[in-house]
Amino acid sequence: MARRYDSRTTTFSPEGRLFQVEYALESVNHAGTCIGLHTENGILLASEKKIMSKLLEQSSTPEKLWKIDQHIVAAIAGLNADAMILINFARVIAGRYRARYGTLIPVENLVQELSDHKQGYTQFGGLRPYGVAFLFAGCDGRNGFQLYHSEPSGNYSAWKAAAIGASHQAARSMLKTDFTEGLSIDEAKSVACKVLQKTMDCVNLTSDKVEMFYLTRNKDTGEVFTQTLSL
Amino acid sequence: MARRYDSRTTTFSPEGRLFQVEYALESVNHAGTCIGLHTENGILLASEKKIMSKLLEQSSTPEKLWKIDQHIVAAIAGLNADAMILINFARVIAGRYRARYGTLIPVENLVQELSDHKQGYTQFGGLRPYGVAFLFAGCDGRNGFQLYHSEPSGNYSAWKAAAIGASHQAARSMLKTDFTEGLSIDEAKSVACKVLQKTMDCVNLTSDKVEMFYLTRNKDTGEVFTQTLSL
Amino acid sequence: MARRYDSRTTTFSPEGRLFQVEYALESVNHAGTCIGLHTENGILLASEKKIMSKLLEQSSTPEKLWKIDQHIVAAIAGLNADAMILINFARVIAGRYRARYGTLIPVENLVQELSDHKQGYTQFGGLRPYGVAFLFAGCDGRNGFQLYHSEPSGNYSAWKAAAIGASHQAARSMLKTDFTEGLSIDEAKSVACKVLQKTMDCVNLTSDKVEMFYLTRNKDTGEVFTQTLSL
Amino acid sequence: MARRYDSRTTTFSPEGRLFQVEYALESVNHAGTCIGLHTENGILLASEKKIMSKLLEQSSTPEKLWKIDQHIVAAIAGLNADAMILINFARVIAGRYRARYGTLIPVENLVQELSDHKQGYTQFGGLRPYGVAFLFAGCDGRNGFQLYHSEPSGNYSAWKAAAIGASHQAARSMLKTDFTEGLSIDEAKSVACKVLQKTMDCVNLTSDKVEMFYLTRNKDTGEVFTQTLSL
Amino acid sequence: MARRYDSRTTTFSPEGRLFQVEYALESVNHAGTCIGLHTENGILLASEKKIMSKLLEQSSTPEKLWKIDQHIVAAIAGLNADAMILINFARVIAGRYRARYGTLIPVENLVQELSDHKQGYTQFGGLRPYGVAFLFAGCDGRNGFQLYHSEPSGNYSAWKAAAIGASHQAARSMLKTDFTEGLSIDEAKSVACKVLQKTMDCVNLTSDKVEMFYLTRNKDTGEVFTQTLSL
Amino acid sequence: MARRYDSRTTTFSPEGRLFQVEYALESVNHAGTCIGLHTENGILLASEKKIMSKLLEQSSTPEKLWKIDQHIVAAIAGLNADAMILINFARVIAGRYRARYGTLIPVENLVQELSDHKQGYTQFGGLRPYGVAFLFAGCDGRNGFQLYHSEPSGNYSAWKAAAIGASHQAARSMLKTDFTEGLSIDEAKSVACKVLQKTMDCVNLTSDKVEMFYLTRNKDTGEVFTQTLSL
Amino acid sequence: MARRYDSRTTTFSPEGRLFQVEYALESVNHAGTCIGLHTENGILLASEKKIMSKLLEQSSTPEKLWKIDQHIVAAIAGLNADAMILINFARVIAGRYRARYGTLIPVENLVQELSDHKQGYTQFGGLRPYGVAFLFAGCDGRNGFQLYHSEPSGNYSAWKAAAIGASHQAARSMLKTDFTEGLSIDEAKSVACKVLQKTMDCVNLTSDKVEMFYLTRNKDTGEVFTQTLSL
Repeated sequence: MARRYDSRTTTFSPEGRLFQVEYALESVNHAGTCIGLHTENGILLASEKKIMSKLLEQSSTPEKLWKIDQHIVAAIAGLNADAMILINFARVIAGRYRARYGTLIPVENLVQELSDHKQGYTQFGGLRPYGVAFLFAGCDGRNGFQLYHSEPSGNYSAWKAAAIGASHQAARSMLKTDFTEGLSIDEAKSVACKVLQKTMDCVNLTSDKVEMFYLTRNKDTGEVFTQTLSL
Repeated sequence: MARRYDSRTTTFSPEGRLFQVEYALESVNHAGTCIGLHTENGILLASEKKIMSKLLEQSSTPEKLWKIDQHIVAAIAGLNADAMILINFARVIAGRYRARYGTLIPVENLVQELSDHKQGYTQFGGLRPYGVAFLFAGCDGRNGFQLYHSEPSGNYSAWKAAAIGASHQAARSMLKTDFTEGLSIDEAKSVACKVLQKTMDCVNLTSDKVEMFYLTRNKDTGEVFTQTLSL
Repeated sequence: MARRYDSRTTTFSPEGRLFQVEYALESVNHAGTCIGLHTENGILLASEKKIMSKLLEQSSTPEKLWKIDQHIVAAIAGLNADAMILINFARVIAGRYRARYGTLIPVENLVQELSDHKQGYTQFGGLRPYGVAFLFAGCDGRNGFQLYHSEPSGNYSAWKAAAIGASHQAARSMLKTDFTEGLSIDEAKSVACKVLQKTMDCVNLTSDKVEMFYLTRNKDTGEVFTQTLSL
Repeated sequence: MARRYDSRTTTFSPEGRLFQVEYALESVNHAGTCIGLHTENGILLASEKKIMSKLLEQSSTPEKLWKIDQHIVAAIAGLNADAMILINFARVIAGRYRARYGTLIPVENLVQELSDHKQGYTQFGGLRPYGVAFLFAGCDGRNGFQLYHSEPSGNYSAWKAAAIGASHQAARSMLKTDFTEGLSIDEAKSVACKVLQKTMDCVNLTSDKVEMFYLTRNKDTGEVFTQTLSL
Repeated sequence: MARRYDSRTTTFSPEGRLFQVEYALESVNHAGTCIGLHTENGILLASEKKIMSKLLEQSSTPEKLWKIDQHIVAAIAGLNADAMILINFARVIAGRYRARYGTLIPVENLVQELSDHKQGYTQFGGLRPYGVAFLFAGCDGRNGFQLYHSEPSGNYSAWKAAAIGASHQAARSMLKTDFTEGLSIDEAKSVACKVLQKTMDCVNLTSDKVEMFYLTRNKDTGEVFTQTLSL
Repeated sequence: MARRYDSRTTTFSPEGRLFQVEYALESVNHAGTCIGLHTENGILLASEKKIMSKLLEQSSTPEKLWKIDQHIVAAIAGLNADAMILINFARVIAGRYRARYGTLIPVENLVQELSDHKQGYTQFGGLRPYGVAFLFAGCDGRNGFQLYHSEPSGNYSAWKAAAIGASHQAARSMLKTDFTEGLSIDEAKSVACKVLQKTMDCVNLTSDKVEMFYLTRNKDTGEVFTQTLSL
Repeated sequence: MARRYDSRTTTFSPEGRLFQVEYALESVNHAGTCIGLHTENGILLASEKKIMSKLLEQSSTPEKLWKIDQHIVAAIAGLNADAMILINFARVIAGRYRARYGTLIPVENLVQELSDHKQGYTQFGGLRPYGVAFLFAGCDGRNGFQLYHSEPSGNYSAWKAAAIGASHQAARSMLKTDFTEGLSIDEAKSVACKVLQKTMDCVNLTSDKVEMFYLTRNKDTGEVFTQTLSL
């Protein structure tokens, strides 16, 4: 029955569902898990590395974590090629804002403009939704550190701690238990590793299986910057 | 039989129904309940919060209630991403009016322009209707306080008290009984809470499960403003 | 068999019928009944109010009767959102004519331009016909008072007395019996009420169940104007 | 078998037929009969009136016979709304010619331009053919009085006497018997009435069931003009 | 099996056939036969008249034979409305050439430009091929008298004697036997009549059943001109 | 099974095949055989003539061999109307190059631009691939004499000796045996005739069944030119 | 079941897969194997030649290895005509960068722009994905020698050693065993030949079955250049 309504973004099912959007979410749920956590003085993004081969170039561009602007980083789960399009799109939004107003774009502005773009792909014919979800970590003068989850549907919401990808359900459950506000960066890393170790179902979490980004603020100058963390 | 006519907005059924529009309404009927009531000196909007998690950022942007302009607020039920597109659209309409005429847009003007936009998505191919309903509360010099209900079909109508979302039927029944004109804001809050408590089927209605906006007028200056209310 | 030809406006059936246009007419036939009658010195439009609730804003905009210009009013039956689009369209036509020629648009000009617009939606792909019928009452220097019936197909015709909507068949039969030319406004009201009472199948026709517009001419100045009538 | 090829104008059947064009012709064959005859000094167009009601405005615009320009009139059979579009189209062609060359358009020029427009609707996707046939009666300096039959397919041809609509077969048979060249207008009226009486299958042909137009030429000035005839 | 590939011009069958183009050819094969023959000093085109009625205007425009320019005439077989579009198209090509270069268009140039236009209708979606074939008779300084056959597919080729339409197979067989080069015009007429009499299967070929055009050259001035021939 | 994927150019089959492109190749395989051979001092193109009739104009334009520019000739196999479009396209490319750079276009440039154009018709919706293959023989200063084979898919490759059309398999086998580099033109003609005689399965290869073009270079001036050869 | 979702790029399957993209990958997996390896001082690309015939022009353009710019070469596997389009596209990107910035394009910039272009063909209707994969070998001042693998989906990644085409699985396994960093060019050639010999399943790997390109840097001037290698 559902089959009659599940091949186009322009068709609601009788229960008011958009199956193509739900299927796009499935493509997110096959991707490596990414988690994000607020810390005392920043936000930690950590993600499982899925492609592992000794032939892979280690020093190459990141797999899951991407810098959008000086004050915003993103973790992706889903179709990589789709993600790259949206990351370029986000960079253009951020750059245009900078050029026009001479200041960094407020984080939610960027997240919303990207989400509105995604929504269009769920309502117009001859398109499919983007098969990718994001965690955006950012910081601006208005709202301080912020962590957003942006879905293929174009929905987004702000979280203290969030997870996307293959084992996001399990990860969220663990975060509910283990996450508390005001974690130090070391405590946050320890929570993130515990969660990923469980969701990846591996005994030893080694450095080549995980990517970590830390978005924080220089305590003196107040400048926001990111750093890559190792285990 | 109905199935032959229910996959496109450009197809009437033999009884003259537009099934895709009815299905879009279903997506509204899965959303949290929102209610609006005229009070003695303003309009109260109250809505059930559906996503609840201790990991959610409490201080973040509203879930269901959005400000369009100084004198108009909206409550939404349905697909969030669709709602955001229309809220931006409404803000642009309001802002353009302000810029052109140097005064606030009359409430019904805005509601109608938005509804006309929605109608287009029920008549042209390669599109689906917007899966979202609105309650608009506003105030202008011409008609004073006004409460509109705008549907996915593009229909809209003015109400003294209205409800949209999952339990809108039950809510409307209760409002018929409990609503009277000229309620004080405290009486209105009490009616709203009673209705939501019933439709949400929860024993204790706590502050984190409900959002409330109050659109009122400064008695001295006559200026319209909104305030967030807690239980 | 009919089913092969009934899902698109661009397909004739083997008997030369356009089913989508016929189905659009069905959506008109679910709407409240509207009737129009020539009187001695004007035209009376009366319509059944379908949505009745004590929560509805009584003083709000009309449900079925709309003013197009100083000398033209319309009664609608069918999808409200579709009707609003066409009413705006008609107002633009009337306004443009006024601006261009400095005089009021002849009634039939407006009716025909609107009907031509409707026809397009019955011949081109990726569209559906407008699901709405109109009674236009107007008055101009050329033809005096005129009453037109405009259908979803784009057909229109001039009548002395006409009915559209749910019980239009019954209403027309009664009008054939009860209508005579040169009725006074009070006689016309009485005929209209008798017809609506029958088609609405209610014992007491109360003022909140009926809307009435009267388009007439000031006997001295000759100026055309409309007034809302109560029972 | 035919069914595979009969839903689009862009599909030939294996026998090289265009079913949608044939179906459009069916919609012509449900319409009232129109006939046209050359007379001694002009052309007579006569048509059956289909919609008859005492509520209908008698003095209103014609049902079947339309003036295109000073020297060209048309009788229509088929979908009225489609006909109105093409009549406006023809008037624009005629007006443009007048404006450009300062003289009346030759009749066949107009008929051909209209027919070419119709042809397009039988060859391009996302359209349906026009469901209307025409008899054009006209007079110009080059060819004198001319009577053309224009079909939904875009074909046209010149006749001494022709019939379109519901009983066109029977009417043509009678015309073959009864028509002779050089009829006086009274003889022509008598032939037309005889044919219509038979095709309409009514005992007494009364004036309200028939429309008649006579296109003739002032014997002195040579000016072409049309007059409405009664029985 | 063939059925899967025969409804669109954009689909090859597994054997590399374009069925829609073949079906278009069928619509040519229902039309009256036309034949063309080179003569000693020109080209003769002759065609069967299909529509015969005493009500038809005899003096009216030709049915099958059309003049494109001073030096090119065409005989058509197939859908008349399609043919008219292409004949206008050809006249525009010829006129544009004349205007640009001040000389008559070489015959093959015109035939090829028309054929290229036809080809497009066999390769792009949302269209059907033109259902008409042509014989073009022309004369220019480069190649003298030329007779081309242009098909719905866009193919064309030059012939000494050719036939299109309903009985083109039989006609070609007879021409192979009866045609020789260097016929006088009277001999050519006699051959043409013999062929048409056979293909039309009629005992007496009368003048109203056949149209004939003769394209020849003034022996003194060398000017090309056409004349209508009678039996 | 294959049938699900074989009606559109925009659909890969599960094995990664493009059936419409393969079907287009079938339309090439029904055409007359063409062969091309490098000789000592040029390239010989020879092709089977398929349409033979004593009524055909012998002196008319070539059937299979076409000159693109002074230094490039092409042999075609497949749908003639498609070929004509591409030959015109190639001539425009060559002419534009000449006009822009004042020198003849390098052969491979032309072949590649044409092939890129063909590729588009295998990837975009609403189109079908071109049903024609080419052998291009050309000569330029960079690479001397070159013989390219261009397929409906847009693939092309350079050959010493090549064959396309109905019996291309058999022809290629024979060429593998009989072709050697550095053939004199007479030897090349003899090889070509032997191959065509076999593939056409005729006892006596007469001059009217074969077309031959020889692209060679004047030994003194180095100028490239083409000549038509007879058996 | 899968069949419902595998004919369009705009449709996700219920598991979130894009079948058309996977099928496009199949067309890559039928192509000859290409491998790329980092060496001590450059990158080696080697590929199997699939089309082998003594009639093929040996000195002609490469089959599998193409130069994009002075510092970037590509190996292709899949549909050749698709590859040519993308290679031209890449050359334009590289040339435009050079013209704009006066310096060579960074390798990853080019790979990403090309990949973004590919992604579009997996998300928009009326298109099919490109049926081709690439290995890009390049060198720039920022990241030195780089080897990228770009897929039909638009995904790309950097490798130390990579394989695409028919036997890419087997080839990758062998590379995991045999590849080590810092190979001399002779060792790299020996590894490449061993792998290709295995995947091509031939006893003697002769020079005409393999193409090899070596991208390296002049030790003195630091200039990057490519050379064709033989076995």
